Amino acid sequence: MKNNTFKIGIPLKYDDNGLITAVAQDHLTGEVLMVAYMNAEALRMTLKTGIVHYWSRSRSKLWKKGESSGHVQTVKEILVDCDGDALLLKVEQKGGACHTGYKSCFYRTADGDIIGERLFDPDEVY
Amino acid sequence: MKNNTFKIGIPLKYDDNGLITAVAQDHLTGEVLMVAYMNAEALRMTLKTGIVHYWSRSRSKLWKKGESSGHVQTVKEILVDCDGDALLLKVEQKGGACHTGYKSCFYRTADGDIIGERLFDPDEVY
Repeated sequence: MKNNTFKIGIPLKYDDNGLITAVAQDHLTGEVLMVAYMNAEALRMTLKTGIVHYWSRSRSKLWKKGESSGHVQTVKEILVDCDGDALLLKVEQKGGACHTGYKSCFYRTADGDIIGERLFDPDEVY
Repeated sequence: MKNNTFKIGIPLKYDDNGLITAVAQDHLTGEVLMVAYMNAEALRMTLKTGIVHYWSRSRSKLWKKGESSGHVQTVKEILVDCDGDALLLKVEQKGGACHTGYKSCFYRTADGDIIGERLFDPDEVY
């Protein structure tokens, strides 16, 4: 499947802010990498380019994941949940997903133990 | 680890509605089962009982997952993301997570193809 052939054939429900929750998962290992949000434009750009784009809620702008770090996410598969209000993005993650340098943003247990794999030093990347 | 020993040692950020996003993942297979939301009370009940509780946005009530179907989720591990605004729940899923009868709520590709495993007939369960 070519990356630019993704289509959405299922009605999606965006929330009151025009956003839909997106979970990125490593397509090979199954590791959950991050949770972020897309608006319709971010999804359109993701489908068009095959590279994941989100909507940054903190910066209120379209956010090509990896635009600063080079740690882009290439889409392998997109799944939609039963309610149509969440997406599961199976991706190939270049470098680490997390801005802290870890492979996954979920690098800590609730207790605070660090269990994630650190791949880079953010001071050298950003 | 006993199920009732989970603690949250990391500050969490709830959104304007008092909710935090929670992703449930099968602790053995890595399959992402569902995305839902917790308020502080749902999280407290989850920590206390070791059984996942969410906040139902559609019903505006505390929701013990599986309360009708018996398809409960037993917590194995809770991870917190870098921003403290999303939880990853590694769970043992009894039966199917999805009210449609599938193991995972993400049983469809964006194209609409059914790829999930159907475990039960909802008409017989609800």
